[in-house]
Amino acid sequence: MEAGSDDIQALIGLLARLPGLGPRSARRIVLQLIRKRGGQMAQLATLIERVAMNSRECLSCGNITDRDICAICTDPARANGEICVVQDVADLWALERGGAFRGRYHVLGGTLSALDEIGPEDLRIPELIDRITRDSMTEVILALNATVEGQTTAHYIADALDQTAVTITGLAQGVPIGGELDYLDDGTISAALRARRRI
Amino acid sequence: MEAGSDDIQALIGLLARLPGLGPRSARRIVLQLIRKRGGQMAQLATLIERVAMNSRECLSCGNITDRDICAICTDPARANGEICVVQDVADLWALERGGAFRGRYHVLGGTLSALDEIGPEDLRIPELIDRITRDSMTEVILALNATVEGQTTAHYIADALDQTAVTITGLAQGVPIGGELDYLDDGTISAALRARRRI
Ligand SMILES: [Zn+2]
Ligand SMILES: [Zn+2]
Repeated sequence: MEAGSDDIQALIGLLARLPGLGPRSARRIVLQLIRKRGGQMAQLATLIERVAMNSRECLSCGNITDRDICAICTDPARANGEICVVQDVADLWALERGGAFRGRYHVLGGTLSALDEIGPEDLRIPELIDRITRDSMTEVILALNATVEGQTTAHYIADALDQTAVTITGLAQGVPIGGELDYLDDGTISAALRARRRI
Repeated sequence: MEAGSDDIQALIGLLARLPGLGPRSARRIVLQLIRKRGGQMAQLATLIERVAMNSRECLSCGNITDRDICAICTDPARANGEICVVQDVADLWALERGGAFRGRYHVLGGTLSALDEIGPEDLRIPELIDRITRDSMTEVILALNATVEGQTTAHYIADALDQTAVTITGLAQGVPIGGELDYLDDGTISAALRARRRI
């Protein structure tokens, strides 16, 4: 038997399924929210509602935005010729925190996987090829995880762009073998980006 | 620079301050919420609002409840003579999951601490003494953490009850030295409760 109201149990259950949380951390969070409920809970509920209402994928790059086209895609100060391809929005955020890249992005939304039956069409890869061709991009930076899946995906994209004039680069050393971008410190990511090499 | 709307950044900031979370896990959670926003985010916002609106401390025992007096305090099937004293609501929940205790509870809301200037009046200890005397309790189980602060608090309560007829017990072996109740598996807590010893 578990104490607390049905709502509290339902809230713990929902939180426990979020990434990085489990039943124990979910219980701790709910108890702290109840203790400090004055401002914190109302603010949290309001923000979650507003984010749910307003957030969607940028129609051009796949970044999370509250408009059709995101602020990065519409920023006139950013370089049009360079496009940085990432697996997830979390990786885009990590690169932006580093501040070393001033071009455009393309978020794949995952990696190719024969096992999970994830093909190029599931990953916004056709949209990427379209953008590169249509916007006459000069450089594509494949900033994908240094995992087998990430590198398989990078090679697939490089092959698909083989007949175009675009220069294809990848992040330089600095990304450890098997490492995931979002786990690295911002300086390491920036250094790897600056030392990027032709694939 | 960080990508995402101001609302998203504010939501990440709020989540990152919750127990067990940091900026990275907060970002992962927000991205997952946005991806699955169909049901999950609306449900989460609604539950947080409802819990914030309805949750308060039981006026008798300090448990979290949606009424003045909680379901455990008003349950006629539970033993009136036994009262189990815990530090936090999380510990009460842990004991209830074990299911071995069928008496009443008293939640202190912390432990005595000279350093943090937390005295008996800050911990619902006067209310505990009142309840034990007024309701003619026969046994007080001090189910406090096996930490220095927990045991100091247990001894303070035992001393304060010295002149009464109540039997004072503590949890038996099974709680490791320095261990916190909420980290133990439910079976260990139940075993320690069943083998409780007189202090
Ligand atoms: Zn965009
Ligand atoms: Zn109660």
